[in-house]
Amino acid sequence: MTRATPILDRVSVPSDMKSLTDAELSHLANEVRGEVIESVATTGGHLGSSLGVVELTVALHAVFDTPRDKLVWDVGHQCYPHKVLTGRRDRMHTLRQENGLSGFTKRSESEFDPFGAAHSSTSISAALGFTIARDMGEPTGDAIAVIGDGSISAGMAYEAMNNAGHLGKRMFVILNDNEMSIAPPVGAMSKYLSGLYASPLGGLREMAEGFEAALPGPLRDHARRARQMVTGAVTGEGTLFENLGFQYIGPINGHDMPQLLGVLRAARARATGPVLIHCCTVKGKGYAPAEDSPDCYHGVGKFDPATGAQSKSRPNAPSYTSVFGNALVDEASRDSKIVAITAAMPGGTGLDIFAKHHPKRMYDVGIAEQHGVTFAAGMAAGGLKPFCAIYSSFLQRGYDQIVHDVALQNLPVRFAVDRAGLVGADGPTHAGAFDIGYLSALPNMVVMAASDEAELVHMVATAAAYDDGPIAFRYPRGEGEGVPLPERGVPFEIGKGIVLQEGADVAILSFGAHLGESKRAVAMIEAQGLSVTLADARFAKPLDKALIDRLARKHKVLITVEQGAQGGFGAMVLHHLANEGWLDGTLAVRTMTLPDRFIDQAAPDAMYADAGLTATDIAATALQAANVKKVLVD
Amino acid sequence: MTRATPILDRVSVPSDMKSLTDAELSHLANEVRGEVIESVATTGGHLGSSLGVVELTVALHAVFDTPRDKLVWDVGHQCYPHKVLTGRRDRMHTLRQENGLSGFTKRSESEFDPFGAAHSSTSISAALGFTIARDMGEPTGDAIAVIGDGSISAGMAYEAMNNAGHLGKRMFVILNDNEMSIAPPVGAMSKYLSGLYASPLGGLREMAEGFEAALPGPLRDHARRARQMVTGAVTGEGTLFENLGFQYIGPINGHDMPQLLGVLRAARARATGPVLIHCCTVKGKGYAPAEDSPDCYHGVGKFDPATGAQSKSRPNAPSYTSVFGNALVDEASRDSKIVAITAAMPGGTGLDIFAKHHPKRMYDVGIAEQHGVTFAAGMAAGGLKPFCAIYSSFLQRGYDQIVHDVALQNLPVRFAVDRAGLVGADGPTHAGAFDIGYLSALPNMVVMAASDEAELVHMVATAAAYDDGPIAFRYPRGEGEGVPLPERGVPFEIGKGIVLQEGADVAILSFGAHLGESKRAVAMIEAQGLSVTLADARFAKPLDKALIDRLARKHKVLITVEQGAQGGFGAMVLHHLANEGWLDGTLAVRTMTLPDRFIDQAAPDAMYADAGLTATDIAATALQAANVKKVLVD
Repeated sequence: MTRATPILDRVSVPSDMKSLTDAELSHLANEVRGEVIESVATTGGHLGSSLGVVELTVALHAVFDTPRDKLVWDVGHQCYPHKVLTGRRDRMHTLRQENGLSGFTKRSESEFDPFGAAHSSTSISAALGFTIARDMGEPTGDAIAVIGDGSISAGMAYEAMNNAGHLGKRMFVILNDNEMSIAPPVGAMSKYLSGLYASPLGGLREMAEGFEAALPGPLRDHARRARQMVTGAVTGEGTLFENLGFQYIGPINGHDMPQLLGVLRAARARATGPVLIHCCTVKGKGYAPAEDSPDCYHGVGKFDPATGAQSKSRPNAPSYTSVFGNALVDEASRDSKIVAITAAMPGGTGLDIFAKHHPKRMYDVGIAEQHGVTFAAGMAAGGLKPFCAIYSSFLQRGYDQIVHDVALQNLPVRFAVDRAGLVGADGPTHAGAFDIGYLSALPNMVVMAASDEAELVHMVATAAAYDDGPIAFRYPRGEGEGVPLPERGVPFEIGKGIVLQEGADVAILSFGAHLGESKRAVAMIEAQGLSVTLADARFAKPLDKALIDRLARKHKVLITVEQGAQGGFGAMVLHHLANEGWLDGTLAVRTMTLPDRFIDQAAPDAMYADAGLTATDIAATALQAANVKKVLVD
Repeated sequence: MTRATPILDRVSVPSDMKSLTDAELSHLANEVRGEVIESVATTGGHLGSSLGVVELTVALHAVFDTPRDKLVWDVGHQCYPHKVLTGRRDRMHTLRQENGLSGFTKRSESEFDPFGAAHSSTSISAALGFTIARDMGEPTGDAIAVIGDGSISAGMAYEAMNNAGHLGKRMFVILNDNEMSIAPPVGAMSKYLSGLYASPLGGLREMAEGFEAALPGPLRDHARRARQMVTGAVTGEGTLFENLGFQYIGPINGHDMPQLLGVLRAARARATGPVLIHCCTVKGKGYAPAEDSPDCYHGVGKFDPATGAQSKSRPNAPSYTSVFGNALVDEASRDSKIVAITAAMPGGTGLDIFAKHHPKRMYDVGIAEQHGVTFAAGMAAGGLKPFCAIYSSFLQRGYDQIVHDVALQNLPVRFAVDRAGLVGADGPTHAGAFDIGYLSALPNMVVMAASDEAELVHMVATAAAYDDGPIAFRYPRGEGEGVPLPERGVPFEIGKGIVLQEGADVAILSFGAHLGESKRAVAMIEAQGLSVTLADARFAKPLDKALIDRLARKHKVLITVEQGAQGGFGAMVLHHLANEGWLDGTLAVRTMTLPDRFIDQAAPDAMYADAGLTATDIAATALQAANVKKVLVD
């Protein structure tokens, strides 16, 4: 560490900032920025978003009284400066590591994280909840939600603003608008604003309006355009926020510390109802390699802080995500009815690949999973073949739509469920733990899981060919197994699994990407002298009942394996076995699932070890069930 | 039938309306209104909403080319006039009956129902899907969504408008605004509008603006107020809809046939992008008893069409819903931290009772389940004890929020899950089939089900007392069992069931309100000479493992019973039994759940018979498992 951090060294918690001058707060921001860059260089993480809110974070903690005031970061991936300033500076090198700091806000980590996040658009609802609690006498102060322009466009944020505006209670929403960069004219705006907010005017809204009207023409246009970009308003009058009952202040420069402090102090001193402060920031601010990068270093691996060069480890196999994207491109090249839907995740889902080849058949609906699912259902009802690609944990946002609009109407929507199972550094919020259960419970639904990337190609083909109702296929985050990819996908027979090897004592029935782990377990069990059958179920629904019955009939032990919670594949198998009488005899069945607790971030393998889902765990379970009492040591 | 319906008699499908004059269409509307009143008088149903859209329905079918054009009714409970006009007139007396017409739109019922509904706010998403399909060459015409003012305030509708406005494709949204009545001034507006839209102006938006500006002051104010009531706009400029990229026309009088026809014809002829037509209607229109009733006969039982007098059957027991409401009032009278949240269902959830006693502790967030759940989570994080009362099927809308904001953070939100299980006339869309599974899969969650209304009182007390994490309790629609209610609820021990009778051969472990049916099954099994244990599990999570182990150890047969889909309570019991080795021996287990298909509407008992969940079914399953091969006949 060669950087000098004289001011940051005096700040271990936000109350230490109360004695700092405004000039020192500006310096503090610079020191925090350097600290964040250096930390993320060693850990990887969401650099761009965090650099964009350095000044905002300092200003919020300087002006408000955290943790009594409740500062709620939407999504939470921009919270690194906040962590540095709230007693976690010395643990920043553990960010997103096993036993380290979470990459998001997390209640169990700090009293300064009053409401954790990682999914989008929850902050205003939570802040409103704290506000009600305060008004009912709970020992809590003001609630402040900090939400990005993408997140605020989601339906949930709209619902929350609608409710907050109606209730009219004092609370603060900081709209962190980083879609636009703030060019030189903002300098003038900045000065004007700082002066304005320091003046003893009565109402906040009047100040904002007076400010805008008093600007010379081009600057006024700029300010209006800034509003329009987030509000969609075609006039400068009545922003969406004002329509919803908020007082609107802005846009202000989120990197100008005096302006930030002035506006926040004025708002804090005078607000009587809900206030929205529109704050423009630059993603990656203050770090040239990030500012110059097209995605502003949204999520980075480890990198060299001097040059910004990211050290990417060479992958052994293509990612499941890219395999999906390419397979869908291929299917779509032969079937003009195929369309693709993403909810603000074109890159994350591999649909950026699809968009390059079929730009007119690609629909990014924004952070709007509810709409995205029913939009796809409408397309299917209209005769198209929609592929709706949404992460397992985000698809939870569209669950009612899957039930009510897709499954109930038996519409052929294809769900590409990425990030199934445990996902590594993003931790429990992003784990795809529940989709097997919540999808398999639904009548008419077909549910598949890919055991490797070649299987995924065939499942894309299966989904493209299957037009009798909804179908879902899940696959994990990260690299495939390195198997050869087929030239072209070949549709599977619906509801049929495959037997990979035949044995006599123990049967392992794997569903999805834990097949590799299951294979290793087979070797361990065989080493104990037992003969093992290994099957890939491919389908959780409809179950391959003939296969399951055969496994039940011919073996003493049957183990199901899946990368998901109880109530999923194993449960479906158990229901079938129980109700067909296969359990009346002496068959021993065990279900290997995720445990009944959330698993903290670590490398995926470490998370599965934590979950009790290693090859050793599978083998030990099988051997215990087979009454071989040896203790396996890995 | 004494009513004369000379015009309606000539209309069996909408194409028959093409030859009618505008005057005849007005008469047709009157005949349809009479038909709907007479039908619903014999069946019960959503009368008020349907009466409000009689003219609109006639006008839409007269102007558009259904079924090629896709008419999507939001929620679908206002579709009775639509059914009368689309080939289903002769089956209107079967509405909401077993084997009869659905009370909502339903794809499988008619080609004129392109997208079924029953949950709110899906229509714009679906209509946009049809629009994309048309633009990609599918043989479909224009898409028209008809959505109420309550439904359009939900986040999902906002997401859809946001997307539709961005895509800019020709489609129609009819905003059916029935919160305000249209008073005499509208007469002038009406004339003006009709004339305006008949004139050969170029753009629709300009017409609307020209219209409004040209009105005399008071009428202009009225028109502006009409906009404001739905848009929340504080100025007449830039409605929310225009901000989102829609052309806005209105408000127009939804009971003035010439105006409706004029506006719809103009819009159909000239629209090039998304158009929103703001149409004001009166719920219950044209039927004095409905117009005069505070809820406008929103949902009615059978009634006398001459007087409007509803024939209510005298209930045998209080409804679960009212028992919940009263129990919560009682708990809240002793605990000032208790607050209640509903998503636009104060009456349906019994929270209207709560609101009467504790008006300042009741929060109706509107149709906004996503926000409602996270709002409750914020309240819990702030130290309050929120009870979030949402129907089982609607709670699906807040699933991600339950996972990400409540369970993951282990926040003590109480979920009162009404309408669990099959619900009768509202059919499969309202069935609470999946909540046991989707809640029990979540770490930290406690899941209870009430076996009668007295148990419900105790579960409300349990939830009030339990502050260690989230807890849910489910209970069915309709009347209780008629058991005496306790003076005051007494908290249950978490995770403990009770044994109601001890036997030796068969154990029945019931979860929830099928306990009565289970008791009848016990008698049938005992009649076959077997001895039966009956237990009420009370908890699906945490399971009463000691109880289950005892049942497994002491019986040859164990039957689980629940009013829910596979993957729920029975699955949790099976996982436990399998993984603890209880299935390695010769215990025969069977799980009685809802079948893997959606159950059409009928009386609840008939639906459960359809589902294979009667006492006879339970007994037959138990006896088969016990190898008593007698055939039971009910």
